[in-house]
Amino acid sequence: MTLTAQLLLAGRPVAGEGEPIYGINPATNERLSPGYAGASPAQVAEACALAEAAFEPYRHRAPAARAAFLEAIAAQIAALGDALIERAMLETGLPRARLEGERGRTLGQLRLFAEVVRAGDWLGARLDSAQPQRAPLPRADLRLQHLPLGPVAVFGASNFPLAFSVAGGDTASALAAGCPVVVKAHSAHPGTSELVGRAVAAAARESGMPAGVFSLLYGSGTGVGQALVADPRIRAVGFTGSRQGGQALLATAQARPEPIPVYAEMSSINPVLLLPAALAARPDTLAAGFAGSLQLGAGQFCTNPGLLLGLEGPVLERFAGLAAEALARAEPQTMLTPGIHRAYEEGVAALARAEGVDTLATGLAARGPHGCRPRLFRTSATHFLADAQLQQEVFGASALLVSCRDENELVAVLDALEGQLTATVQMDDQDAALARRLLPRLERKAGRVLFNGFPTGVEVCHAMVHGGPWPATSDSRTTSVGSAAIQRFLRPVCYQDCPPGLLPEALQDDNPWHLRRLQDGRYSS
Amino acid sequence: MTLTAQLLLAGRPVAGEGEPIYGINPATNERLSPGYAGASPAQVAEACALAEAAFEPYRHRAPAARAAFLEAIAAQIAALGDALIERAMLETGLPRARLEGERGRTLGQLRLFAEVVRAGDWLGARLDSAQPQRAPLPRADLRLQHLPLGPVAVFGASNFPLAFSVAGGDTASALAAGCPVVVKAHSAHPGTSELVGRAVAAAARESGMPAGVFSLLYGSGTGVGQALVADPRIRAVGFTGSRQGGQALLATAQARPEPIPVYAEMSSINPVLLLPAALAARPDTLAAGFAGSLQLGAGQFCTNPGLLLGLEGPVLERFAGLAAEALARAEPQTMLTPGIHRAYEEGVAALARAEGVDTLATGLAARGPHGCRPRLFRTSATHFLADAQLQQEVFGASALLVSCRDENELVAVLDALEGQLTATVQMDDQDAALARRLLPRLERKAGRVLFNGFPTGVEVCHAMVHGGPWPATSDSRTTSVGSAAIQRFLRPVCYQDCPPGLLPEALQDDNPWHLRRLQDGRYSS
Repeated sequence: MTLTAQLLLAGRPVAGEGEPIYGINPATNERLSPGYAGASPAQVAEACALAEAAFEPYRHRAPAARAAFLEAIAAQIAALGDALIERAMLETGLPRARLEGERGRTLGQLRLFAEVVRAGDWLGARLDSAQPQRAPLPRADLRLQHLPLGPVAVFGASNFPLAFSVAGGDTASALAAGCPVVVKAHSAHPGTSELVGRAVAAAARESGMPAGVFSLLYGSGTGVGQALVADPRIRAVGFTGSRQGGQALLATAQARPEPIPVYAEMSSINPVLLLPAALAARPDTLAAGFAGSLQLGAGQFCTNPGLLLGLEGPVLERFAGLAAEALARAEPQTMLTPGIHRAYEEGVAALARAEGVDTLATGLAARGPHGCRPRLFRTSATHFLADAQLQQEVFGASALLVSCRDENELVAVLDALEGQLTATVQMDDQDAALARRLLPRLERKAGRVLFNGFPTGVEVCHAMVHGGPWPATSDSRTTSVGSAAIQRFLRPVCYQDCPPGLLPEALQDDNPWHLRRLQDGRYSS
Repeated sequence: MTLTAQLLLAGRPVAGEGEPIYGINPATNERLSPGYAGASPAQVAEACALAEAAFEPYRHRAPAARAAFLEAIAAQIAALGDALIERAMLETGLPRARLEGERGRTLGQLRLFAEVVRAGDWLGARLDSAQPQRAPLPRADLRLQHLPLGPVAVFGASNFPLAFSVAGGDTASALAAGCPVVVKAHSAHPGTSELVGRAVAAAARESGMPAGVFSLLYGSGTGVGQALVADPRIRAVGFTGSRQGGQALLATAQARPEPIPVYAEMSSINPVLLLPAALAARPDTLAAGFAGSLQLGAGQFCTNPGLLLGLEGPVLERFAGLAAEALARAEPQTMLTPGIHRAYEEGVAALARAEGVDTLATGLAARGPHGCRPRLFRTSATHFLADAQLQQEVFGASALLVSCRDENELVAVLDALEGQLTATVQMDDQDAALARRLLPRLERKAGRVLFNGFPTGVEVCHAMVHGGPWPATSDSRTTSVGSAAIQRFLRPVCYQDCPPGLLPEALQDDNPWHLRRLQDGRYSS
């Protein structure tokens, strides 16, 4: 499977005209060939024009055809076999088992959206009957369905080279909604992106989809990425990455003559609340569980547990000691890119220097060039409340334990937190009263509240929310993981007194797609 | 029913500390007492703090209690009786029958949201069962429901002093969602606002709701309005008004440290497409229907038909002549405010001066100070396509007829249009092929596509969409009229492995609220 390093414009391989980008093996610092020439401004515009041209034919394909396309993408990615895993290992430093698991999740996600498309609830069909006899004015016949927004720009993330990348959740949900997709590949894994992109393009061809339904571009975020978001044919943006990157795209989207929605998943430190009875009962399993969750994927998870909150006292000390012990003997894992490793080292250095912050543990020294030495820091609630910098995300296996004098101070720390993807409560039955007091606050701060687990691991299912208030995401009303993610790319349209011959299938009297519809206020099945 | 001209802070009457605002009787230019002193910055902040304090208790009220509150608001408004209608007539110049109809719609809207709250579909409950035996990793128990965003700022609109104002659709849907509301009254009808505000406050008291669930402020949009949107306790904004006003609020909301959603309904010229066979068959009824729709409420409707599109030729001439005749003998109606009347006169003067635009009709001279003389203009598609100013909304009874050389030029005009609230097709069976060609374009341009009717008149029901792409609204994914409007004020939250004793009612195993829930991918009823 030779890499050609070509862009895919409407699925067609084309040589990029911009500066080349090279993957780097973070375990060896070795530059990987081939070089991926970025898209020129004209090539970005061409991809958008092709997506726009594909929009009408694509959105009119029946749900069954769109579902089959998503399944074909899954099959084509599966058919890449080990070549995909090996290239991803080279480019990311992630171990084989993790990448194989991630591939399974990516395929599962595509198949879940195929099911969702077929079921058709995303159409949200509603019918209100005409009332020609109503006084003083008759009521018209009114019918509502949801339509796709139009071409979507998707930005691959560095930390999930498969599941949040070229054919990840954003792409799957946008295609499911009926939106063509233009992907800006993450520069950390261009080869992986090419392989997956070719699989998507092949699936589009074999499914008879309009070619412009998928394009793949390489290039920088500030160049190609910004041009993509500014292009008038792009109607929505999916992004997972840094707060700075997300905010820059959001600013561009809002400055357009016609602003568009940006779904940016940006920054979260995922507080874990260690309630007293749980902590007293099982400090060892909690410490081990925490240390494991923190180190997963070298801590490069959006849902990494970066903040621990507990009530000061010997029980918290015991936990801190056990966690520090586990982390001090932790083997370093290679981080995704030199830049991420550098930012991690800067972040932990800043924490170590911050007033009132102690370093409790530092993992074993790295042998390779970009190993992540896990860190555990500790501070008091007073210091935490005084310094907003202490709640900045440090991407990697770094956590800060905040000890609170009492429950009121714990509540004050919670109230001072920014929005989060997740919040975790470790509790026993005796902690129920405190948990009941905290829960309403956690509901406001986070998209997912979990109990007696750890936040890493995001299930792809119907009830998942991978989202949350700012700055966890730019739009707390949505999720980027799970079947509800399709709703990000839809808008409602109402048809009034539409002649039967013109009515879309979803709204026809005989309900040819067998949808569950809200008919005069009642669900039809 | 003496007007006290006081703000309502958490329902409590308080004297404003800012400059007074006076209503004006637009039919006589007479200043109406009393003067409404605006809220000071401290009073704006206090209203927001009270709303925030009320949020937790209010959102935890069961749906039945919230529904009863909405019904109590309707009853209290009804109990205001004729005093409300009389004050609204004085302040707006709108006739009694129109205001009585609008009151009925306002009460019906509150009662519809009461039903919606009780039915509970807005909770969007989803449950995915745990799979403890799943390999390689067990699956947690995951449950999702929707929660209210928090306090909402609502801006009353000038043109619907009841249905889009203090207790209009934005307030009703925000309260239904569980969000406290702080209303900035429109300065054109402060007395009407006070009466309705007192009714809402009385309903909150009698329903035992936390007082901060409702506050009412007077003051300018640039002062009080901007301060309200900038307040960190406000979590969403509902607005109906001008494009300039909406964009200013949007800019403030996006510049906050934590940006918030703004649902601004701004600007639409509501194209009406006169297809050839329909036009040939019934030029007279179309001309009469159009003239009636254009003049409704002196044209001061968001859905006013401000743009007519047809294919040039004798049939279009015939229609133009009939419409011009009807409008030339139209009695002027008093506009809502001196400012709106002035803007209307400036808008029609600019159109009359524009290159390639002819004035086809001017209504009868006004007798009162702010009468709207209806206008009909005509231009060619060539001129329309060359001058973006020609598609600026002129708020009032002004319309522009654009004659197109052929179907392709009609399509080009459609493609050049900005986003719209509505698009209307006048068609007969013989127009079906052309209509089929146009419909996909209309679906992209408008929130509601209607056939053989006129766009004025927005039904409050489940299938209504009063929304549309920019600049019709700031968020095409939503509607501000109809039961789906509640979704604007909600966000999803997921609960993972939540102990049964802590689970919210909507997600408990025994389903105490009898909700329709998505259980492992299937609806429970």
